[in-house]
This record gives sequence, C-alpha cells and structure tokens, in this order.
Amino acid sequence: MCTITLTTDFGIRDWFVGALKGVLLGINPRATLVDITHEIPAGDIRTGAFALMAACRYFPKATIHVAAVDPGVGSRRRAIAVQTANYIFVGPDNGVLSWALAREKIETICQLENPEYFLQTISRTFHGRDIFAPVAAHLSRRLSLRKLGRELKDFTRLPWPEPTRGTDRIRRGKTSAAREDARHAKIRGEIIHIDHFGNAITNIGADLIPTSGKTICELMGTRKARCALAEFYGAVPVNTPVAVIGSSGFLEIAVNGGAAARRFGLRIGDAIHIRTNCLTASTSSLSSRL
Amino acid sequence: MCTITLTTDFGIRDWFVGALKGVLLGINPRATLVDITHEIPAGDIRTGAFALMAACRYFPKATIHVAAVDPGVGSRRRAIAVQTANYIFVGPDNGVLSWALAREKIETICQLENPEYFLQTISRTFHGRDIFAPVAAHLSRRLSLRKLGRELKDFTRLPWPEPTRGTDRIRRGKTSAAREDARHAKIRGEIIHIDHFGNAITNIGADLIPTSGKTICELMGTRKARCALAEFYGAVPVNTPVAVIGSSGFLEIAVNGGAAARRFGLRIGDAIHIRTNCLTASTSSLSSRL
Amino acid sequence: MCTITLTTDFGIRDWFVGALKGVLLGINPRATLVDITHEIPAGDIRTGAFALMAACRYFPKATIHVAAVDPGVGSRRRAIAVQTANYIFVGPDNGVLSWALAREKIETICQLENPEYFLQTISRTFHGRDIFAPVAAHLSRRLSLRKLGRELKDFTRLPWPEPTRGTDRIRRGKTSAAREDARHAKIRGEIIHIDHFGNAITNIGADLIPTSGKTICELMGTRKARCALAEFYGAVPVNTPVAVIGSSGFLEIAVNGGAAARRFGLRIGDAIHIRTNCLTASTSSLSSRL
Repeated sequence: MCTITLTTDFGIRDWFVGALKGVLLGINPRATLVDITHEIPAGDIRTGAFALMAACRYFPKATIHVAAVDPGVGSRRRAIAVQTANYIFVGPDNGVLSWALAREKIETICQLENPEYFLQTISRTFHGRDIFAPVAAHLSRRLSLRKLGRELKDFTRLPWPEPTRGTDRIRRGKTSAAREDARHAKIRGEIIHIDHFGNAITNIGADLIPTSGKTICELMGTRKARCALAEFYGAVPVNTPVAVIGSSGFLEIAVNGGAAARRFGLRIGDAIHIRTNCLTASTSSLSSRL
Repeated sequence: MCTITLTTDFGIRDWFVGALKGVLLGINPRATLVDITHEIPAGDIRTGAFALMAACRYFPKATIHVAAVDPGVGSRRRAIAVQTANYIFVGPDNGVLSWALAREKIETICQLENPEYFLQTISRTFHGRDIFAPVAAHLSRRLSLRKLGRELKDFTRLPWPEPTRGTDRIRRGKTSAAREDARHAKIRGEIIHIDHFGNAITNIGADLIPTSGKTICELMGTRKARCALAEFYGAVPVNTPVAVIGSSGFLEIAVNGGAAARRFGLRIGDAIHIRTNCLTASTSSLSSRL
Repeated sequence: MCTITLTTDFGIRDWFVGALKGVLLGINPRATLVDITHEIPAGDIRTGAFALMAACRYFPKATIHVAAVDPGVGSRRRAIAVQTANYIFVGPDNGVLSWALAREKIETICQLENPEYFLQTISRTFHGRDIFAPVAAHLSRRLSLRKLGRELKDFTRLPWPEPTRGTDRIRRGKTSAAREDARHAKIRGEIIHIDHFGNAITNIGADLIPTSGKTICELMGTRKARCALAEFYGAVPVNTPVAVIGSSGFLEIAVNGGAAARRFGLRIGDAIHIRTNCLTASTSSLSSRL
C-alpha cells in the first residue's frame, strides 16, 4: 500500500484531476490517492508551498507528495523528484516543494528526464498528468529515484519571509534566547495565508511567542485593530478578534464565529506586530519550562 | 476493509482535509475514506447534522462517520463516539451527530478523553485532525469504544423543527392517522436546507404528504408563490415551480431547469404551507394503500 | 480491483456524492472511486460530455465510467450501460456519454430496466444514487451487462460542432488532406469549454492545425483580439494572449499568467477563426512528417 498526495491549482470543475488520477491508477492500481487541495490560486507557488508544508508531515512514511503548481509548464524549468528521510516529493523545480523540504532531511534529488517513465505523448501544458503522475506512480511501485534522470545538488528555494524584531532578523536555532528577547521587544511579522474560515495565518512560529505575559497583536490591514493572544477561538466572546497558535504551528488572527480577513481587510503580505507585556516571569523560570 | 466518512466545514481550499486524511491513513492505511462534504458553512451545526443524516444510511454496516463541524473547538465541549446497531459516529457533542443518531438504535456512547488514541500533540483549533481522525482510525481497526473514555448516558440533541398542523404539533408514530388528518388540514413547515441546485428542502417528511388529492404548496419567501406536488422535476414545464418528494425523503420546492431559492427568494427558516384538496379517496382506501 | 469514475452536476456542498459513494461501497467495498468532477453546471449535458470525453481515456482498461448529468431524471428518458472495447459507461441516454463513446469501439448497449440491480426504493429525483451507482457497482463485480435489460441498437448522440473551412465542412478521416487544405484557408471553429484557468477550449482538433507556417487565431468575443499559435503558455510574455494545442487535444486560447475568457469576454459558442500563412513547406515535406 502506498499513498500519493496531490497539491495542485487545477481546480475541481474540469477533468484535469480525474485524468491525472486515471494515469496514476493505470500504473499503480493499488495506490491510495489523497487530495491535499486542488484550489491553490492559479500559478500561486507560495500558497502551494505553504499547503504542502502544512499537510505533508501528517502522512505516513513513504508517502509520495506530488505538487503541481506550475506556471512555467512546457518551458525549460526543471522537474524534480526528491527523496527525504520520510517521503518522496515530485513536482516542478520552481520552489513549490521547497518549504516542505526545508523541514525534511534530504537524501537524493533527481531531475525528471527519462521519458521511459512519462506518458507516451507529452503535452506542453499538462505535465501533472503526463510527467508528474506517471513518475509518482512508478515511484510508488518502488522504482529507484536515480532511474528518473541525473542527480542534482540542490533545488530551487522559495524565500521564507522571516519575522523581524526591531530591525534585526530573529536568529534561528536559538529558540529559548529568541523567545526571551521577544518578551521585551516587538516582533514584526506578516500574513502568509488567508484560510477558508477567513483566519489570517502569519509567519510567526509558535517558538517565537512568549509563553508568559500578555501578548497583544496589532493588525495593520486596511482597518487597524488589536487583539490578545488566547488559547482557542472560543476563549473570547463571539465576534471578537483573537490571536491563537493555529493548527499549522503559526500565530493566526481569527474572529470567534466570524472571518477576520474580511472584518479587518487583511491580505497576504500585510504586517502584524506583536508586543508582550511580561513583568512577572523570570528568565530562568521561563527557560525551565521550555 | 472499513469505510470512514467525513462531514466537515473545513472547505477544500486549504490543507485541512489533507492533513486529517494523512492522520487516518497513518493509523489505518487500509481504510477507505469518503468525503460526504467539506463545504458545510463555517460552524453551521444544523447543516452539518442534516447532511450527515441524509447520507449516512446509504453506507455499508460498520462504516465510521466522522462529523467535524465544531465552533466550540478547544473549549470544554465534550467529544463523543457513539456505537449504533449499524455504524459508529465520531464528533463533537454539539448536536451535529444528533439528527443522524435519531434514526439509529443507540448501543454505547463514550466520551473521547483517553489521549492514548489522540495525536501526540493536540492543537486547540483542529480537533478534527488531532482527535477525531485518530480515534476514528483506531476504531476502524476494531478498538473497543469503551477504551476511549467514560460511558455517557446521552448526547446533545439538536431540536428538529417539527411541522405543525394548525396550531397542533403533528403526532409522530401515527403516520397513517397523521396522513389522513393532513388531507383535511394545512401543514405548516419550514425550509431546512437549500441545495446546490437551488432546491429548497423542507422539514415535511414524505409520510405527512397525502398520497391522493391535489397538494398545493404555498411558498412564503420574499416573493410569494404556489406550486403543485408532482412526481419529478420534469413533470412540469421548464421554468415552472414544482414540489416533489426529494431524494432525502422530504418535500422540496424546485423549479424545473432553474433554481427555486433564487427565483422566489427562499431562505432557511422560511415558512412553507401545504394544503390538500382531497374529495375522492376514502379513508379506508387510503389506509389500505399504506 | 476495479475503478469507477464519477462525472456529475451534483456539486460538492451537499450529501449527494457521499450517498452515491455509500451505495457503491455497500455493493462493492473493493471498488476504487475517482471523481472526475461534480461541478458540471446543473443540467449541462454538453459540458458533462466534454469532461467525460477528455478524462476517460486516461483510465486503465475495464474502468467503469458513470456520468450523471440528468435534467430529465424521473421522466421516461432511458438509462443505459455501454460496453466498449476498453470501458463500461453508465448514465442517462441523453447524450452525456456520446462524445466519449464516439472514440470507443462499441460492443454492447443495454437499457437499465432490471430493478434487481437498483436500490430497493427508487426516488424520482436521484437516479445517480438509486440506479446508476448500484448498476455500476454490480458491473464492477463482473455482472454481465445483458442482465441489466434489453439490448439496444444505438444511443442518443449529442451533435458535435464540427469546425468549417469557408462554407465547407472539413472532411474527417482524411486528416493529412484536411491539414494541407487548412494551410491555405481559414478555419472557423467555436469555443466549447471555458476551463478553471479561464482558458477557452475550441472544437478545432490538433489534427486540423498546420504543423508549419505561422498560425493566427482571431477571437470573436465581446472584445476582438488576435493571437499566434505557440507551443506552451510561457512561450509568450506574461499577460499576452496565446493559442496552444491544449491537453485535451484541441486548440485553446490562453493568456500567459492570466484568464483569457475574462480578458476577452469569451463565452461558449463564440466563434474562433484561424488562418495560416504557410509559404515554405511543400505538401510533400509536410505529409512526410505526419
């Protein structure tokens, strides 16, 4: 049994996803196919990268993740398959795989160039069906990655918008120190995704949020607003804005029972500032709880 | 082989459903996963309860039905698993399961409280992924319901808007009498769902509709209208309103080739009156046909 | 293992698709179910026929394709199952199957009339669930088609809008001659589908497009425009219109990084003219490349 996931911008109105699944099942009728989403906005590599990053780690080991958000389809952009310690990722080398790969231990990267593992006729507009699907299906039948083409040293990385503190970039890898610093300073982040519920997900990871003191978020959308950090949506009255650590591990802005993005005119890229008022917890007691 | 169905308000644009399915397959790779719908309006427990009620009984015995429409996620609301003679239902104890359960023979109700069967890290915003999915997957591998937590005596019931006759509530369990009475009286019902086609589904069950005589429905939307009961949509000319016994067993208002809800400004909760003009059939001949 | 595909206008908001899948799995729990799409516009037989035609041939042999776009549900319109050399097709006999069937070698056509293979209770509004699903599930368990009902000689064919050259209809079956003629003449086609990306797919098949010379398309939407044929979307600058041979084998009009239909006000049925300026390639050299 092997699971193959699909993250695309193909939409669900047309026959695109169906045709792609037909190709997969033609090569491996025993594959379990799971849609992550097909509603990535057309050609929006960042949104595709975020969805894949947020979902992929919940799948069992050996899952094959296909991401087909591919505005350069048919051009000379490379297509790749990447073996990590947990998964195989297949898609165009345009960055759509890169945020998911940033959390994985990379083992092998291969370029997709061996037509033996493609459909016989390859369109110039639908490599999801003609290249990524047959490659993923062959891989799910234990084809060695190296049969697909030459090994590559690296893949295209999409820049991740790191949150900043004052004018300084927050140092990674020193989370307890960063968290301590954050108690005394403003963190500047931005909105990286608006979800189905109208929640605005930021680039501020849970590891940057102080665990004591009162944390206040300032929203810099078309309508300015502030809200406090709480543990869950319903911790504030209905129709009240609230910040929570969302299910993908990032700070998100919500309205209990409402849609924060519409209410405050929030858009991807809008700034979010967080300030923490933390007078009581000592550094040592904070660190000891981490 | 075990089927697990999903009824949620997560939408299909984000990675939520994908992550939830990853968790399910990680625990039971042999489960067959079926989406009932993920497009329940956000937090709309009644619409979720109706969809689950309408779909669940078409599934084979031993199917596990998960319903995650959960505006109170993260709060102290209970989560439950309910074993019935046919199925297991899993979800928040907020009423979303209750209309489906009203048609089932209840065997055991257990609270979900044993973290052994949850994800290791539990968010406060996504119990679908962190609690309901792993519990359902373990149940599909024949985990005993009682391992999940303490047994409960009852679950939260969502009131069902019973149709009325005059000022009297129609007595249930006496369907042939009720049907006979209905021949002589006006039934007042209401719209409980507007479907994808713009059909307005009412709370008036097929058992309340006289089987002889001419039945007329009065629509009390923003535009008043009347239509007759017919056997199927195409029994009236194109663009004509018609009432039919719909596929979920309730009277529904449609427009042949059109969308009744838009045409007549119908909304959930709007009143529907039905009157039957029945001069010919005698009570006995009617009863004998039941 | 048997795959059953679904092409419907049921939408994904309601419980319709879920109920249908419950019926399928109740009869054949081992079937692999694939959604082609459930977002065919309500009752739009042509769009359903096109989606099925475009997707079906990518599925493995013996796949059962169910198409439920059925505005005449409940009336006397026939329902059929059609065995071809590759597949079985199941649906109403209203033309929705016919474009897919036009590319298949037909073996047997049977009317669906044996209630032994239907659900026990048959609604007049949802034959997808009550008739097509159980029939398809029984067929996937190797039920002989002839058990379903009387054999038919033919099925309802939806007219295909053939492209024309001048006032002449282009002769089929003589593709190299047709292609040569096309080099010197204007082809008049029309838009038959607008996809999720806003690409406008025409009825002009790849076999009618000259393989040499410069081909220009004239769009006759609300805003007139012209564009050249290229190999892929990204072959022209961003925001520039382009014609390509699309993934379903037809000429399509796109805007690189944009949505052609919205940009040029294109609708289904709008005319497209193509002209080829071909001075260099001789007929023989052209033919030899075919």
